[in-house]
Amino acid sequence: MRVLGIDPGYALLGYGIVDTDGSRLSAADYGVIETFPDMTFPERLERISQGMVYILDHFSPDAVVFEELFFYHNITTAIAVGAARGVALLEAQKKGLPLYEYTPKEIKQVITGNGVADKKAIQHMVMMYLGMREVPKPDDAADALACAITFLSTMEPAREEFRIK
Amino acid sequence: MRVLGIDPGYALLGYGIVDTDGSRLSAADYGVIETFPDMTFPERLERISQGMVYILDHFSPDAVVFEELFFYHNITTAIAVGAARGVALLEAQKKGLPLYEYTPKEIKQVITGNGVADKKAIQHMVMMYLGMREVPKPDDAADALACAITFLSTMEPAREEFRIK
Repeated sequence: MRVLGIDPGYALLGYGIVDTDGSRLSAADYGVIETFPDMTFPERLERISQGMVYILDHFSPDAVVFEELFFYHNITTAIAVGAARGVALLEAQKKGLPLYEYTPKEIKQVITGNGVADKKAIQHMVMMYLGMREVPKPDDAADALACAITFLSTMEPAREEFRIK
Repeated sequence: MRVLGIDPGYALLGYGIVDTDGSRLSAADYGVIETFPDMTFPERLERISQGMVYILDHFSPDAVVFEELFFYHNITTAIAVGAARGVALLEAQKKGLPLYEYTPKEIKQVITGNGVADKKAIQHMVMMYLGMREVPKPDDAADALACAITFLSTMEPAREEFRIK
């Protein structure tokens, strides 16, 4: 099974593709879709859309797992990050893929056994789970990998609970 | 010139298409893209995407004008409405159209001369501007028409100020 994890954002959208043969996990790819302040907001959304379509077509995941948006200082930021998440959801939905979502706390709990673990602890565990020699960079990509690992660590009958409704 | 006005929302997204021959304004079409609570959120976004693509292809507007999102009680709502706006922006951007945005206050000011006018006053003026016999329904469609009229009432050199950045 191959799972695409997504850490939504409009400047950096992290993605991580994790494969499992039933016992071992490995990262097929990870990185970020990056957009820049000199682009208009609609141009940034278009870039995110193109990036998502490329990743979905190129890696053909069986499921897509999102990290839930959490804590925004202001409504303007929430509207903008909500748009980036919306475009990523749309492209995954258009492929007919099952979509899941975990809160940051749920991800921390599954990855480290501690719902309030810090970034470093999570990144270290992601590296261990995936048999990597170095911590994956940037942070957004590591978060996306953590998201995919969390899903693959959820027992199958329990996964339905995390479906995006 | 033909302008598509959009009042973004994820349950009801209002649209209104206004034509001008340089002096008179008329409505080519208006209505809502509707989604339902029994759909998943990604399904709702997909419906909005399909609706936008249909409207853009069918009516071929020269510009798209959005009403700016304004006042949400909570972050969850802002993220969801931000996603609907994001999908609508994306589809318009993919057509390479110029995109504009006005605040509700700016729209009220242009349509009625009063930045704090109530819904009824706006709807009445929309009906008058477009030479209609009845107030356009539902409210979301009337708001979208008001948005398009506001753009067409803006002198051309001043329009750049309302481009979505």
